[in-house]
Amino acid sequence: MKYKDASLPIKERLDDLLGRMTREEKIGQLVQPMGWKTYKKEADGTVSVTDSFKEDIAAGGVGSLYGALRADPWTEVTLETGLSPRQGAIATNEIQRYAIENSRLGIPILFGEECSHGHMAIGATVFPVPLSVGSAWNPELYREMCEATALETRSQGGAATYSPVLDVVRDPRWGRTEECFAEDPYLIGEYAVQAMKGLQGDSLDSDRTMVATLKHFAAYGSSEGGRNAAPVHMGARELHEIDLYPFKKAVEAGAASVMTAYNEIDGVPCTSDAYLLNDLLRKEWGFDGFVITDFGAIQMLVHGHNTAANGEEAVAQSLRAGVDMEMSGFMFRKHLNSAIEQGLLSENDLDAAVRRVLEMKFRLGLFERPYADPDLAERSIGSEAHVRLARRLATEGVVLLKNEDGALPLSKSVGKVAVIGPNANHTYNQLGDYTSPQPRGQIVTVLDGVRAKLGEDRVPYAPGCRIKGDSKEGFEPALACAAEADAVVLVLGGSSARDFGEGTIDLKTGASVVSDNPWNDMECGEGIDRSTLNLMGVQLELAKEIHKLGKPVIVVYINGRPIAEPWIDENAHAILEAWYPGQEGGNAIADLLFGDANPSGRLTVTIPKDVGQLPAYYHSKRTRGKRYLETDLEPAYPFGFGLSYTEFTYDNVRVSPERIAPSGEATVSVDVTNAGAVAGDEVVQLYVSDVTASVTRPEIALKGFRKIRLAPGETQTVTFRVGPEQLQLLDKNLKPVVEPGEFRLLVGRHSRDLTACSLFVTEEKSL
Amino acid sequence: MKYKDASLPIKERLDDLLGRMTREEKIGQLVQPMGWKTYKKEADGTVSVTDSFKEDIAAGGVGSLYGALRADPWTEVTLETGLSPRQGAIATNEIQRYAIENSRLGIPILFGEECSHGHMAIGATVFPVPLSVGSAWNPELYREMCEATALETRSQGGAATYSPVLDVVRDPRWGRTEECFAEDPYLIGEYAVQAMKGLQGDSLDSDRTMVATLKHFAAYGSSEGGRNAAPVHMGARELHEIDLYPFKKAVEAGAASVMTAYNEIDGVPCTSDAYLLNDLLRKEWGFDGFVITDFGAIQMLVHGHNTAANGEEAVAQSLRAGVDMEMSGFMFRKHLNSAIEQGLLSENDLDAAVRRVLEMKFRLGLFERPYADPDLAERSIGSEAHVRLARRLATEGVVLLKNEDGALPLSKSVGKVAVIGPNANHTYNQLGDYTSPQPRGQIVTVLDGVRAKLGEDRVPYAPGCRIKGDSKEGFEPALACAAEADAVVLVLGGSSARDFGEGTIDLKTGASVVSDNPWNDMECGEGIDRSTLNLMGVQLELAKEIHKLGKPVIVVYINGRPIAEPWIDENAHAILEAWYPGQEGGNAIADLLFGDANPSGRLTVTIPKDVGQLPAYYHSKRTRGKRYLETDLEPAYPFGFGLSYTEFTYDNVRVSPERIAPSGEATVSVDVTNAGAVAGDEVVQLYVSDVTASVTRPEIALKGFRKIRLAPGETQTVTFRVGPEQLQLLDKNLKPVVEPGEFRLLVGRHSRDLTACSLFVTEEKSL
Repeated sequence: MKYKDASLPIKERLDDLLGRMTREEKIGQLVQPMGWKTYKKEADGTVSVTDSFKEDIAAGGVGSLYGALRADPWTEVTLETGLSPRQGAIATNEIQRYAIENSRLGIPILFGEECSHGHMAIGATVFPVPLSVGSAWNPELYREMCEATALETRSQGGAATYSPVLDVVRDPRWGRTEECFAEDPYLIGEYAVQAMKGLQGDSLDSDRTMVATLKHFAAYGSSEGGRNAAPVHMGARELHEIDLYPFKKAVEAGAASVMTAYNEIDGVPCTSDAYLLNDLLRKEWGFDGFVITDFGAIQMLVHGHNTAANGEEAVAQSLRAGVDMEMSGFMFRKHLNSAIEQGLLSENDLDAAVRRVLEMKFRLGLFERPYADPDLAERSIGSEAHVRLARRLATEGVVLLKNEDGALPLSKSVGKVAVIGPNANHTYNQLGDYTSPQPRGQIVTVLDGVRAKLGEDRVPYAPGCRIKGDSKEGFEPALACAAEADAVVLVLGGSSARDFGEGTIDLKTGASVVSDNPWNDMECGEGIDRSTLNLMGVQLELAKEIHKLGKPVIVVYINGRPIAEPWIDENAHAILEAWYPGQEGGNAIADLLFGDANPSGRLTVTIPKDVGQLPAYYHSKRTRGKRYLETDLEPAYPFGFGLSYTEFTYDNVRVSPERIAPSGEATVSVDVTNAGAVAGDEVVQLYVSDVTASVTRPEIALKGFRKIRLAPGETQTVTFRVGPEQLQLLDKNLKPVVEPGEFRLLVGRHSRDLTACSLFVTEEKSL
Repeated sequence: MKYKDASLPIKERLDDLLGRMTREEKIGQLVQPMGWKTYKKEADGTVSVTDSFKEDIAAGGVGSLYGALRADPWTEVTLETGLSPRQGAIATNEIQRYAIENSRLGIPILFGEECSHGHMAIGATVFPVPLSVGSAWNPELYREMCEATALETRSQGGAATYSPVLDVVRDPRWGRTEECFAEDPYLIGEYAVQAMKGLQGDSLDSDRTMVATLKHFAAYGSSEGGRNAAPVHMGARELHEIDLYPFKKAVEAGAASVMTAYNEIDGVPCTSDAYLLNDLLRKEWGFDGFVITDFGAIQMLVHGHNTAANGEEAVAQSLRAGVDMEMSGFMFRKHLNSAIEQGLLSENDLDAAVRRVLEMKFRLGLFERPYADPDLAERSIGSEAHVRLARRLATEGVVLLKNEDGALPLSKSVGKVAVIGPNANHTYNQLGDYTSPQPRGQIVTVLDGVRAKLGEDRVPYAPGCRIKGDSKEGFEPALACAAEADAVVLVLGGSSARDFGEGTIDLKTGASVVSDNPWNDMECGEGIDRSTLNLMGVQLELAKEIHKLGKPVIVVYINGRPIAEPWIDENAHAILEAWYPGQEGGNAIADLLFGDANPSGRLTVTIPKDVGQLPAYYHSKRTRGKRYLETDLEPAYPFGFGLSYTEFTYDNVRVSPERIAPSGEATVSVDVTNAGAVAGDEVVQLYVSDVTASVTRPEIALKGFRKIRLAPGETQTVTFRVGPEQLQLLDKNLKPVVEPGEFRLLVGRHSRDLTACSLFVTEEKSL
């Protein structure tokens, strides 16, 4: 059988295999049932496959399984009922073995897993969420995180990840803001490229790489009102220039898979958009991987978008538009065959999709090496190196928003530091959405981190209140706790935790207790959109009460979207925005609080003053207006903003040459000096402003950045190349072009603190 | 001279005239200086033209003058320095006479005036703002208003109006919400057609018609964040189906002029959009009038949109795109000639624009009858008939939002009714934006109206507080006033008044006093966008204090955009939303309060619960989502909603035939009964829901309505025709098509209270 002969070219193997397959087997390759339902864990930690899985295999097999190792309330898999890393690797091997040995053709299964910030599996290293990773402005460090994640996942059998999320977030009411890197397409694009390197490496046929899935294609971050999966109102120019840009970068970098978005754009659902999937992605961009839907997206064509009258129409529309695999596979399994029988689809349509899925399995080497290595899983998952990396990422992702009179860093010789707040010692609230439950010992809370610095005796703790809800029964112990301290670290914010209750905290004792409501704290995450950006519950009241004591109050936010809380901005002595910093968050925050690390995170989303100011993204046109009656349009904290414990000065911004042809390149340089007393990282940012253009341009647009480390007194010259990629626009016919004229190149600390120089692009003929 | 020979066809006269004109004279025809600067009022009430106007005439003339009769803080013309109707007619005649007699060719001036809700001139009848007129769901009555307005305006020489505003308002933060009829394109389209009939009549060559100017072309009501003139994010399908629809209807009905919008759409400024102006409006729709810019819109191409490097580029871009006249004319006067000299424009480009402007003057009969009739002005302006019409419109535009336990109507035999609140007796707050100051006696406030019912003695009054600001010095007198009454009418809301201070009220005495800040109360109107939708200042506090007295509290809102105030919704005994009801507002509201009229207004904009719920328009897709964490997506009051003092029942909703071809028509019918004890007007509403379509469709879309009057016990059968216009969509290629399948036809009282029947469109061939 040629398809089993690894010495032959993939195309030949594919042709051979496809020629042998029945229609049922073909359809089987396009479905992706829920992986956690394929097995039962036995008392000894091994697994046995379920009858329903056996039936699936007998009925033509399954091309892929979704989330075989996923544990969370949705899967009803808990820390107790779930699998350890070694057990997980053995389990996927058992599933794989059953499929191979009990099917006619022995086609291996592609295990697809959630790994947006670490593998969503028990024991896996939980890195910070993408919003934090973006705030580090360090795509190379993210590449290391992707390498670690790919290794941890593949070692358990996972060969595809549903990441990176490349959505350009435009409305922080959206609960998935935490899952996005930024509101800026250029910044996301830089992360996208590193994701491809880190996840996919040089070859997918390796025990440390996997298929990256770009999502959500497209414009999912611009949904109406920040409501998840709501319609997107957008014209073609904005779509191409803003939302599609990071996807294009990732496709150029070799992305192997793309996931369609739930939403429609101007009336056309992305999951049945032949222009997006076939014409643009495949033909124009040359994408050669496979396309998968989001979960339930094909159902939405019938119920929601209502562009299909029934299941047959829905599967035909999506497959013909360019979809290859359906996450879950409910609709494909049920309706693909009858759609073909009804003439809505041809066998060729089906074959094209099957071919793309199988080609990926050949590229992954699954036919030759279908099994994971349990030893490698045990050795690599949660390794010391990965934990160190998680700590570094968490540290770099924290943004210092305020530091009045050097309130930070705290001296370690301070007497007592009270650590207070609902997120001070919560097991899961700092992990973010798409995280499996983890052993308590794997998670370092802020309380853990501060106690590791000062010892338990000098660090009294009280939760004070919950994220949500009216109860103030924790106020009294919190105030007593604060009263005996010399400074207060007040850890507020939000939560995306589906925490099973283990993480719920008794407000009087501070002890973890089992709750009857696993969604006790949840105010962010997929499907949890907000109509305000304030702290929920009685958190603000707690802060006001504690503030009255007159002690230095350091507010630490742990949360998944911008918080608009003017009183805190005004009255806290210092504010650290940590987003969801992952399992090492407490160590990272403690390092920053006590000066063992110097804050280097910078905002990648604008923090507005109020929900009524939205949209507030920096990347706006000059005509966006100046003010509302109640407030101007200045944000609370602008894009790119973040303080340091040292001071940086920028001198001598210059460009050379000052005149270039449209196809030419120039270099813009700046001398950056650490004018303070401690070493620090600075994120040097370059923005471009097109003074006059044939279509309107954003007032400024990020086009380069560099994170550099400077010792006290040290000066470094930072240079950026500026050429067509930085200067081009899409003209009235949507053609990319560099137009002659003046460009302002703006360099500085953040989007509202920039120094400009001018570059002139001449007519091509005049050079 | 052929051009002066009225017996010749216009084309011949035009050719002759154009052939005689110098370039300066041509450019002069395309500019529109500010009319109020062309004259000085003398002590005897006559006017003399200014030197600067004489210079303009000598320099080639002016094609048009903007707002010659406009009085407001912007023009610095006051009640005292402005002109009475008779004086105004004489003044425009003097200006016209000077232009004709002192120019080489004697081309008459086109006087363009603001007349969105009555002529913006002293003494003119002030009708309710369009948001109120829309709420009447009575386009025929609006046609009468347009006829009255055209007569009042033309009788003073005004021959063009900058109305109707056909923008589809999508974000009530926008200060111009009051200027729009609705959030729904179909409803706006119905008003647009009547505007053409009422303003333009059968012929423009009449002393009671004028050029209607459709504005703002296009999509101005969908600006980002509700910020005036901010960018519009919109795809082609939405643009054509929603925002362009009312314009198309008005063009089909013969619109003579169109004004470009300030905003860009997806990167292209409307004022230089050749697709919109030349290709779509002129070539596809067959528009044969002239296009004028909004004030300063061409400057915005240089500063704001930055699509033009200088004035020459800006004027060339706009003229070539299809603009003919520039409001103000600053840029055309300064740069048109040099743009031609530089080769950016041809003489032909210039001629095409001049031809369109001159053609309109011929059509208006201005060459034959350039002068107004002061007697007609005196007789018609503010006539009894017009005031009656204003009262009827104001009455029909008020929406009864709440009426707990029949709190309304009040009995006239009630003891005392306290009238309280900042808008209870404010001279101008009820008039809305684009209103000139009017003599006090012309304006009937709510206090005036209630006292006219009960007499002054039984109607104590106190202002209570201002619209904005913290002062509570009026609380005590207001509470004392309420304490002595049997019921309280609390008149709250907003203001768009640029009131010169005459309308400011002393909080202690209730007397009108001159304020040093003419914008004291202003919280709405052009350029006054809001980031919240709450009552401003201490109005809510005042309401709470008065509520504590335990009397029936009837809240009347006078304002320009939806108010989201849940406490009022919960605690007021009744709520009337009156918008800005115009000069007769007080009589209209009093009629409704005491049952002399029965409320028949229905909302044409959704009232959300909170600004964080936006966008909240009803015309949304099924995928818009269900809820935010803090609130669901149900509005406070839905589109189409409005209570009555009687009850209406709907029975027997049916369609005939039940199956039609795509080109066919059906009739949907319903039996509507007045089941209550008093006569009342009901707005019977028809919505269409396309069950399955090739592109996504709004869940429901208004496609018909009928306002009917029913005596108690009376039943009327209301029928709607449903055909291609109601059923079609723009397919993936933006082609209009009626697709086979099921349509739900929903009939009822408002967008959330509907009864459905089904219509099936068959394949064409199957019939």
